[in-house]
Order: sequence, then structure tokens, then C-alpha cells
Amino acid sequence: MERVERRACFGGWQEVWQHRSAVLDCDMRFAVYLPPQAEGEHEALPVLYWLSGLTCNEQNFITKAGAQRYAAEHGIVLVAPDTSPRGEDVANDEAYDLGQGAGFYLNATQAPWAAHFRMEDYVVDELPRLVEENFPVSSARSISGHSMGGHGALTLALRHPGRYRSVSAFSPIVAPSQVPWGEKAFTAYLGDDRGAWKQRDAVELVANASERLPLLVDQGDADEFLATQLKPELLEIACRGAGHPLTLRLQPGYDHSYYFIASFIGEHVAHHAAALRRGG
Amino acid sequence: MERVERRACFGGWQEVWQHRSAVLDCDMRFAVYLPPQAEGEHEALPVLYWLSGLTCNEQNFITKAGAQRYAAEHGIVLVAPDTSPRGEDVANDEAYDLGQGAGFYLNATQAPWAAHFRMEDYVVDELPRLVEENFPVSSARSISGHSMGGHGALTLALRHPGRYRSVSAFSPIVAPSQVPWGEKAFTAYLGDDRGAWKQRDAVELVANASERLPLLVDQGDADEFLATQLKPELLEIACRGAGHPLTLRLQPGYDHSYYFIASFIGEHVAHHAAALRRGG
Repeated sequence: MERVERRACFGGWQEVWQHRSAVLDCDMRFAVYLPPQAEGEHEALPVLYWLSGLTCNEQNFITKAGAQRYAAEHGIVLVAPDTSPRGEDVANDEAYDLGQGAGFYLNATQAPWAAHFRMEDYVVDELPRLVEENFPVSSARSISGHSMGGHGALTLALRHPGRYRSVSAFSPIVAPSQVPWGEKAFTAYLGDDRGAWKQRDAVELVANASERLPLLVDQGDADEFLATQLKPELLEIACRGAGHPLTLRLQPGYDHSYYFIASFIGEHVAHHAAALRRGG
Repeated sequence: MERVERRACFGGWQEVWQHRSAVLDCDMRFAVYLPPQAEGEHEALPVLYWLSGLTCNEQNFITKAGAQRYAAEHGIVLVAPDTSPRGEDVANDEAYDLGQGAGFYLNATQAPWAAHFRMEDYVVDELPRLVEENFPVSSARSISGHSMGGHGALTLALRHPGRYRSVSAFSPIVAPSQVPWGEKAFTAYLGDDRGAWKQRDAVELVANASERLPLLVDQGDADEFLATQLKPELLEIACRGAGHPLTLRLQPGYDHSYYFIASFIGEHVAHHAAALRRGG
């Protein structure tokens, strides 16, 4: 594992690391923000994982969201992985919403994707193991993300009870089985078996969730993808039907950009900090 | 004047406008952040101008610095222009530190630059006039910037007494006459007359400043350009010699990036807000 970037930021350090991923069988980069509390003697710090959206890599969140300020206030480590396996040997597609930059945080079962596209195993297992072995952190984990990454945060938390203390999402794809982005990606990565799709769809997963982890979702009402790709009302209906706790906030005027994330990431970090500090 | 971007951000609006600049004789873009206080009935708001560094345009500051949060807190409008005239008809150079993206906030006197490169007149006169005619702002102005833009902020404030209520800079080029970036740009834009250079050099200007506007300067001590291009100690010596008030803060560990700006822009906005609210 090699550090490729290290920059002072809000009294702590914003770093980027590169490593060989065994799960993805390629070189990967991830970002780690170490708050001031990580220096010297201290208790192991909790970690908030951030999953970015389509076309992003590990840079978008750390350069645009301004989350480091809040992580420094709360003494939380931030970890932001890339959004897919990468490299010349890794399958790709010309479209922005399939292949590299569009891993959808699942393990693909179909050729040519199955060889490398195992982002669920990477985010849930390999990356936390790496982080917990190499940084002064505890095993207290929370997860959040944006758009495709919001889908990732919700589905990974719902599929792995007990793994995350809290979960939140910005503008998530809540029902990928029912919208163009998800239908395209799931067809390519998982094939035509709609049963497999349901296991990767937050709206389907809340219906049978064994753990009632509260969901915090922020959604801009001027989001250009709201009606076609995001459809937060489907999550609201599913949570109501299942009795699953959901806080869905429709934020007036906000769009799908990082200006939206920057405006509310402080509240999300505070939400996760409360859960991470409560212990469990 | 045409609005090309409008995004909700921290309860206000981050906008980008395009217009024909008479002074620069080309189309220009500038960013305006309107805080929540700009909605409805209110007193005219003060404006903080931000000047970016080499290679930047109007986007860098608004996407990476996180300044909108603080502008929203203080009720200040932020205006961030591009760093040079732009377009196919505008002279350019292959190097990153000359021509488009490298206007150095001066009026060029030499061919081929003199035709369009009049960034001093643009930033000091044309842009504020446009902003004050089209937005709900007062004529209370402050100015700040980074690197080449820090040079711009310091020199424009020193050259135009009474025009700005306060001035600050991150990692400024304080003595362009004595460092490679400045020597190259000044030779191209102003020719070999070192007397003209002195009129664009903060270290030279403080020696004869008629107005004792306090200078606030933050500089990272891990800045990769510190020893070769920035040399803040020259400003310290000049200010001491002239009795010009200077707060120079060497910030340990910080580099030349926007992570540095993001970490301290809140303190700069608060500094300017205090001066802008004091009236005068």
C-alpha cells in the first residue's frame, strides 16, 4: 500500500492511498481523511465510508464536499473509495453509466464484468480490513453516499446487518430495478434474473430487513434526475409498508450537484457521529 | 449578461454569469454567490471579490473552497472572476504561467497582450460596476485571492486606496519582480521597464502606500512554491520598514492547494465581514 497524496486540511491530513486489491484484481485508490484527533495518543477513531456516484473517483468527495471540517469537529475518519475497478485490463464501456466509474457497489455475475466488478466485497470487506489494519481506527463504521453511491450505502447497510452503525444518502437511486440507470447496469452485471436484482434494490430490501437501521435521505426537489432515476417516493412507500424508520427530507431548490452535498454534509456527519459515539 | 449556472447552495444561490467585457474585448464568465440574505427585502449586501491563481477560471473557488457556508453566515456576496481574458481571438501561450489563465491582474502594455489583457481595469472597475448594477449589493467591497490572485488582491488594494474595505491573501506572490513567475509575466506584459514592474509589486507598493489598509496573509509552510516564488519574508520586511500593518501567519504543514484555502477561508470571510459591516 502506497501513499500518493498527503495534504494538511482542517488541522488533519487528507491522504490518498494506492493498493493492489485482491478482490477486484486491480490497483485501486482510496481517500482517507485523518482528523486532528488522529495525532498522538487517542482512542481508536470511528470511520464514515463515503460512496460516490457515476463517473466519480476517489477525488470528487474530498475536493468538493467540504466534509473534512465536520470530520475534524467530530473526530471521525472519512474513507472514500473509487466507484469501480480500474485499469486497462478491466472491462469497460463507452457510456458513462456502465463499466469503469459505474460499479454500482455489487458483485457482478455476468461476463465480461464478473472478473473484476466485485465492489460489494471490496467496500464491505477488503477495504475496511485494510483501513482497520493501517490507520488508528476502530471497527465502528457508518456509511453514506450520493446517487449511485446512495444506492450503494443503502443496499450495503441493508444487506449486512450489524456492519454499520448508521446509514444516510444524498439523492440515492432507491429503486434501481425500476429506473433506466439501474435496469441497464443490473442487466449487464447481474443478467436477466429479476430475483438477483431485488437483492440489490433498497426498496425491495427494506421490505424484509432484519435490522431496523434508520435511513436518513436528503433529496433536492430541483434534481434533474428526480422523476426519472431517483423516485424517493418509492422508498417512502416501502418503508411505510415495512415499518422501517426513514427520514426523507425534500430540500427545496437543490439539484444533483456537490453544491447540494456540501450544503448538508455537515448534518449527515453529525448524524453519523452521534451513532458512532453511542457505541454498540 | 446571461446566467449560465444557478445552483442552490447553503440556503442561497451559486450562479455563473457570462457577459461581453468592453474592457477586455471578449466574452467573460464570473461566479456570484448570493447568500440567503439576498432574498426578499433586505439592505444591500457587501461584496467580497476573490481572485484565483494560475490556470484557474471562475469555477475553482466556487467548487473547492467551501466559502459559501461562511458567506451565508455573514450575509456577504462572493464574486469570483476568471483569471484572464479568454477566447480564440485572445493571445495565448503554451505555458501554464503566461497568457490565458495567467492574467496577473494588470493592464498589459506590450504586444500581443495589450489588446485584451487589462485585468486590472476589469476587476477594479468594469466588474464591480456590472455587479452593483445587477445584484442587490452595496458598494462596500473587500478583496482576497490565492497565489497569483493573492498578488492581485494585495496590489489592487494598494494601488486603489479607498476602493476596498479590507484585503487578504493566501500564498500570494508578494514580490513578482524578484521571482520567476513574476519576472516572466512582467517581461511579457509590461516589457523591460522595471519602474513599471514596481507599480505591480506588493513589496514595492507598501513602501509608499498612502492608505494603511491592514494586510492579512496566510501561507502554508509546506507550500512547494514557498522558497522560489512566494517569499513572504520579503513582504514582512517591507511592511516593517514602512510601518504598514501586516498579519502574516505561517500555517504548519499546509501546501499550495485548495485544501489549505478551505481550511482558513472561514477566518478570512469573518475578517472581511467585520470590515464590511463596520461601514466607512
